[in-house]
Amino acid sequence: MNEQILLARAYLSRVAEPPAPALAAFVAQAGPVEAAARVFDGRVEEAVAAETGVRRSVHRPQADLDAAAAAGARLITPEHPEWPAEAIEAFEVVGSAQLAPPLALWVRGPARLDELCGHAVAVVGARAATSYGAHVAGELGSGLADRGCTVVSGAAIGIDGAAHRGALAVEGATVAVLACGVDRAYPASHELLLERIAASGLVVSEYPPGGVPGRHRFLVRNRLIAGLATGTVVVEAGLRSGAQRTASDALALGRTVMAVPGPVTSAMSAGCHRLVRDGALLVTRSDEVLEAVAPIGAHLAGGPEPQGDRPTDGLGPRAALVHDALPARAARDTRWLALESGVPIGDVRSALITLERRGLVEHCAGRWRRRQAEGGEAVV
Amino acid sequence: MNEQILLARAYLSRVAEPPAPALAAFVAQAGPVEAAARVFDGRVEEAVAAETGVRRSVHRPQADLDAAAAAGARLITPEHPEWPAEAIEAFEVVGSAQLAPPLALWVRGPARLDELCGHAVAVVGARAATSYGAHVAGELGSGLADRGCTVVSGAAIGIDGAAHRGALAVEGATVAVLACGVDRAYPASHELLLERIAASGLVVSEYPPGGVPGRHRFLVRNRLIAGLATGTVVVEAGLRSGAQRTASDALALGRTVMAVPGPVTSAMSAGCHRLVRDGALLVTRSDEVLEAVAPIGAHLAGGPEPQGDRPTDGLGPRAALVHDALPARAARDTRWLALESGVPIGDVRSALITLERRGLVEHCAGRWRRRQAEGGEAVV
Repeated sequence: MNEQILLARAYLSRVAEPPAPALAAFVAQAGPVEAAARVFDGRVEEAVAAETGVRRSVHRPQADLDAAAAAGARLITPEHPEWPAEAIEAFEVVGSAQLAPPLALWVRGPARLDELCGHAVAVVGARAATSYGAHVAGELGSGLADRGCTVVSGAAIGIDGAAHRGALAVEGATVAVLACGVDRAYPASHELLLERIAASGLVVSEYPPGGVPGRHRFLVRNRLIAGLATGTVVVEAGLRSGAQRTASDALALGRTVMAVPGPVTSAMSAGCHRLVRDGALLVTRSDEVLEAVAPIGAHLAGGPEPQGDRPTDGLGPRAALVHDALPARAARDTRWLALESGVPIGDVRSALITLERRGLVEHCAGRWRRRQAEGGEAVV
Repeated sequence: MNEQILLARAYLSRVAEPPAPALAAFVAQAGPVEAAARVFDGRVEEAVAAETGVRRSVHRPQADLDAAAAAGARLITPEHPEWPAEAIEAFEVVGSAQLAPPLALWVRGPARLDELCGHAVAVVGARAATSYGAHVAGELGSGLADRGCTVVSGAAIGIDGAAHRGALAVEGATVAVLACGVDRAYPASHELLLERIAASGLVVSEYPPGGVPGRHRFLVRNRLIAGLATGTVVVEAGLRSGAQRTASDALALGRTVMAVPGPVTSAMSAGCHRLVRDGALLVTRSDEVLEAVAPIGAHLAGGPEPQGDRPTDGLGPRAALVHDALPARAARDTRWLALESGVPIGDVRSALITLERRGLVEHCAGRWRRRQAEGGEAVV
């Protein structure tokens, strides 16, 4: 990993309050090192300056990386193989300001984020959960984790905590996405729970070490919960709740939105019923969730990857465009691919990383080409 | 009312076990008087003979009419103005054997069946209802009846009884469709409830007086519950239940199917959740039911008729075809209308009755024509 890029991304992760759509676009276009230097110097266009002006002089990337290391955490960036490129691609494709992609992610725990996100479902809901809701969240957490599916949630009290605990109870994978630094325990009563999650899964945040949780950050954080998972299940939610926001982010990101019903007499189920009436899938148990997020039969075979038969199945739209643009045998450079595919050059780069990880393309003397299958035929 | 027709229909209502698709088609084609005579003599084609052979010698129409009168009941037939022609038309249009139309209906109570069916919702569910289900059924029954909507159900213990009681509690209209004669109280514990229903609304059955309830008859009866209402709400149901059958009949008849959610831990809500997953509308309160069965705004205005702005809105497909076939000003006879519209002549007749009741056509020297609006223009 290029130390310069890591320091640049660490600086960028602190310089703007997420979501920072202008900065994200600028970094994708200029690359992180140049972007960081120009942001620090103030040599940026107005929209980027508006997002970074207040904090651009706070230049402490090495101190943040050290603080993370001291807490057992690390910074992962789009340039890391561990970066969940396929999941994050949805943010880039949607292109909404509210759903700007994270510039980097601070993670604490032994697991690889890209692997955990390969087959992941978010289980979210109200803090003021009823005992019914907490029970169902725990059952879903256990049922999903037991089938090899990662349980993503926000570590809040109520539904979130029950979902994480359900996954941990069957020694399954779970990811907590925080609205504060990964070195902090919020809520304080979940300090032990967060330690348990960090011991086997991952605690994730886009806020640098020491970052404090704020009301706004919980809502902004919710887009990451939605985006890191293939689908989102709302277990209990009032009519106006953060879980509803997670569901609408999930919908915008093209994820499957699901909701658990409950008594019509319970205000904590009213948000779930509203979601179903608005088109969310009603689910009652983990089987139904897995059916909805994986192709038929995939979860039965125990395979962690929700992919179809062809290697190109499941690619995001931009990666698919870049793949299609590559000729069957000739190698092409990034600029040519951007012109041919119509995909911005910054996105071509991340698409190529995705395609390379899938074994669909290979890098060769500064250019890219389709990888040849064993029989000499291109992998299509 | 033609006495001959009444006696013929009374005979026909006993001669075949519903649903009797071949007999229904024969009666529609030959007319009730000729059909009854030929059934009694055995001069019918094989399919009709198969439905009527066992009971054709049981000729006691006057005794049945007398028994009904003694119980405060009466027979209504497609030839009566009170016949719910629009509701029953769906059975004729669907044309499925299982959903054959009733040949006549025995009713007990002061209300007019056609009026009650003008704006009616079926509220059905499990006998083994939970207290939650019974509570919700009662609330729905009251909420619907309070807004001028008739509550149709099957008078069973559990959900049905709670729905009827809810309607009665607000002095609203309710219809109980029985799987036995209207002179019998089944279940016995609902004798008082049935008396209360018959005192203000209607107790309805296609089985003649004295008819006993049988397992088969409950399922067959369910199609009438579904058909007499514009929509069906299932409040609680196990995965295999009579309420599911009512819902599938309602779907086949083109009615709106709705289901009330409940705890996923309750077996009595499992059937409702399955229905929603299969496409039924999730509803949590009577407002949502009324929104689904009436055009937007209609229930707000308190109007009992779920009709749009044009007099032809809400017509069944056959009535609409017949109406369309009529020229703007010229009068036509029934045979001409059958040829022009492609609707069987028996159905043209019932369609014309519907259209006449709506004030859309008028009878004139053996022929029918569009009724002229005040300004001299045809009502379109």
